[in-house]
Amino acid sequence: MKDVLYYAGADIGGTGVKLGLYEKSETGEALVYKWEIPTDRRDNGKSILNDVDDSIKKVCADKEIDYKMIAGLGIGVPGPVNEDGVVYECVNLGWKKVNVCSKYREISDIPVIMAGNDANISALGEMWKGGGKGASSLVMVTLGTGVGGGIIIDGRIHPGINGAAGEIGHITVNPDETAVCTCKSRGCLEQYSSATGIVRIARDIMNIPTDEEISAKTIIDRAKAGDALADKAVDIAMRYLGIALSNVACVTDPQVFVIGGGVSAAGEFLISKIEKYYNKYSMNTLKNKEFRIATLGNDAGFYGCIKLVMDNS
Amino acid sequence: MKDVLYYAGADIGGTGVKLGLYEKSETGEALVYKWEIPTDRRDNGKSILNDVDDSIKKVCADKEIDYKMIAGLGIGVPGPVNEDGVVYECVNLGWKKVNVCSKYREISDIPVIMAGNDANISALGEMWKGGGKGASSLVMVTLGTGVGGGIIIDGRIHPGINGAAGEIGHITVNPDETAVCTCKSRGCLEQYSSATGIVRIARDIMNIPTDEEISAKTIIDRAKAGDALADKAVDIAMRYLGIALSNVACVTDPQVFVIGGGVSAAGEFLISKIEKYYNKYSMNTLKNKEFRIATLGNDAGFYGCIKLVMDNS
Repeated sequence: MKDVLYYAGADIGGTGVKLGLYEKSETGEALVYKWEIPTDRRDNGKSILNDVDDSIKKVCADKEIDYKMIAGLGIGVPGPVNEDGVVYECVNLGWKKVNVCSKYREISDIPVIMAGNDANISALGEMWKGGGKGASSLVMVTLGTGVGGGIIIDGRIHPGINGAAGEIGHITVNPDETAVCTCKSRGCLEQYSSATGIVRIARDIMNIPTDEEISAKTIIDRAKAGDALADKAVDIAMRYLGIALSNVACVTDPQVFVIGGGVSAAGEFLISKIEKYYNKYSMNTLKNKEFRIATLGNDAGFYGCIKLVMDNS
Repeated sequence: MKDVLYYAGADIGGTGVKLGLYEKSETGEALVYKWEIPTDRRDNGKSILNDVDDSIKKVCADKEIDYKMIAGLGIGVPGPVNEDGVVYECVNLGWKKVNVCSKYREISDIPVIMAGNDANISALGEMWKGGGKGASSLVMVTLGTGVGGGIIIDGRIHPGINGAAGEIGHITVNPDETAVCTCKSRGCLEQYSSATGIVRIARDIMNIPTDEEISAKTIIDRAKAGDALADKAVDIAMRYLGIALSNVACVTDPQVFVIGGGVSAAGEFLISKIEKYYNKYSMNTLKNKEFRIATLGNDAGFYGCIKLVMDNS
């Protein structure tokens, strides 16, 4: 009998679940397989966990791995999760308050089951295998449709009392904003520095016909190509981000910032703008932090799930 | 031989050092004595640690306590300190970069010597014996001449990589500010919500003759008594604080906020204003946190120093 243990990760999103299976023995470790299944949101997402488990069992059968050798499963959830696995609300999945770990234990005997918020989990994944390698204290910011964040302290996720630590997208950067954020407050970072926010700012200051669809990527590409107004739009968005991250540093003083999400594909162009404003608004002790681009893309979540249970098995 | 151990705390400030000596045995524990010595800042504060040690020895002699029974000493320092005891700069003491623990070990055989930033140490003290009792995750804000802050996570100080975690006073709340903060940045919380900040705002909007000295306390008292302009000044100051603490919550999601420092003597009047704006700018999951007033005053520091070494001895 081989002395091998397996760890599974399931990063549950609104449209799909990204999964990974990882093996670890005394001689080494590696990702065995990664795959994806659709998220079934019907009936308040009640079959999601069963679908995940069925899918893991199927992959185990395909790979001739004994399901009983899975020592741990980590679950990423798109909403606040506390350290016990309590999800308060998950609008994207149709879930109300539920202990996702207890729920999974009803259908599986995997010895260690843990859950984390998707952004926190991604931060842990990037620390382990991605842009955050070598750092044990980092803040990850995900610039996508919204702005997500995850805080890693001493190599572990810092979830906060209600699982809402790292909700960087809802830092108030403009208290005088009149437009309402998805969180119902006003002036949140997410309203400016997300892909949606960049488009909103650009529509305000560029001459974009209202019937013309435009993406954050197009705006950033135009800015890179020298379009002054597009550059101004991106600059406004990154100024707010630089200020917000300077504020995050005042709270948690991390080793490294990791910037991920679709918008982060713009790379050094974005980083240099973020750094400019970060340093402008930071006190001396906090200036010149390292900013890195995330490298795992959509795999960050399941890697983080795996790391979470490996650290706690 | 009694089975008693002693722990000492020395909270070093710009004008005085507040000290405490604590005893712990199997049957109980208590503060033995608290006292204060002046801070000798001459020659870049080179005699401060010797003065502290001489004073502890003297108190031990007076109380007939064997100095060798001191199991640990905690030192609070008014500047960023990392977990190893490295102070980067301490303007108030005239210290440059120094490892304060190593330095103390040169003059003393106390087995465990640890150091922390004064605001962090006070937060720990308030958690142990003061306004934060019962919480293991809290953020303390000190509203004095400046605005200080300390972050406690899982019952321990979160110092950050450079010892600058919890520097809440330097959160940027108004990026368009033209006046310069003590940290050389602009628009820091400290410029509005400290005692100095409240006076500055009041001078701006109230008809105070420029040659009239006025204190934050007087302004708050006038506001309490119904002076509309004074109330507006305090309201502006507490709005910025509410926004900043809402931002802190997005990062660390604490159980409790503890408000200390001279300005906090205004009690419930202040808390209600902070809560109003905190809730206005917070996302749902983070709304309605508990805000408490600190109770230990200037003793919070040495209590925190004692707790720090007791937890690590």
